Amino acid sequence: MDLKEKVRVVENFPSEGISFKDITTLLKDADGLKNCIDQLVDRFKNEKVDLVIGPESRGFIFATPIAYLIGAGFVPVRKPGKLPAETIKSEYALEYGSDSLEIHKDSIQKGQKVLIIDDLLATGGTMETACKLVEQLGGEVVGLGFLIELDELKGRNKLSKYKVESIIKY
Amino acid sequence: MDLKEKVRVVENFPSEGISFKDITTLLKDADGLKNCIDQLVDRFKNEKVDLVIGPESRGFIFATPIAYLIGAGFVPVRKPGKLPAETIKSEYALEYGSDSLEIHKDSIQKGQKVLIIDDLLATGGTMETACKLVEQLGGEVVGLGFLIELDELKGRNKLSKYKVESIIKY
Repeated sequence: MDLKEKVRVVENFPSEGISFKDITTLLKDADGLKNCIDQLVDRFKNEKVDLVIGPESRGFIFATPIAYLIGAGFVPVRKPGKLPAETIKSEYALEYGSDSLEIHKDSIQKGQKVLIIDDLLATGGTMETACKLVEQLGGEVVGLGFLIELDELKGRNKLSKYKVESIIKY
Repeated sequence: MDLKEKVRVVENFPSEGISFKDITTLLKDADGLKNCIDQLVDRFKNEKVDLVIGPESRGFIFATPIAYLIGAGFVPVRKPGKLPAETIKSEYALEYGSDSLEIHKDSIQKGQKVLIIDDLLATGGTMETACKLVEQLGGEVVGLGFLIELDELKGRNKLSKYKVESIIKY
């Protein structure tokens, strides 16, 4: 199945000059949705995984079905102020300014094996931050999975100490 | 399995006087996650469903595994400005002010059968708005599923023309 063909490219969104990869056209197709989730599961079938983490909010879309299918739990990484209990936070740089992500302090037990899934690997900033949070809590990152990878942004270089898998490349 | 026991209640979040139902403690438990998704799937097993819709962002957590399991597509309903292609929008009232939700215009074909899933049924405002968007596009709402229902807020009354199912009640 050609998954790339099901992705819609929207020019100049969210800002001038950006070619946005719109995955909603893929996700609304039942076969497309099943195929991309099955492929992500397959890439990590040899890893023992206790928890699957998805960064808010498109990471949630893929992380929970994968957690369900491999028999793991799901843990959200969220924007500041959304998680109700005690959290740790990590900042990351954006082109202009910075942003940060939070995770519940009690969401990972020391030594638990963690797979992190997101829709898109661009510069790798979000994922690097998510890995930092997991490791701060004593979790072991056993893999990073993406539906789409934007090759020319070289986000993979920032994540070179991890097993990185992506399904569709641009 | 007592799912309610796995939900953490956080007092005074996000504001004074609110007893927040924190589902992250349930979701990180692999058996809890599997059980609540299986129960939601079971409640709608007699409906023919083409698309499962989840409102941003906690709706995504449950809508995609359910879509995968029943062989449907997934469609996101999002906060304004997040969806890249042409959308329709609907406003809903909050205690103070209003908010709105968007859906892609081409996300539903006329006559498609739609199941909408969210984490929480409180006053029902979000879900009522999501139903309106689906029906404006010609979709048929065949059911509404929630992990948690706050009985005393009577959100169910607002949704009385639909089949409403919830797994955990407060």
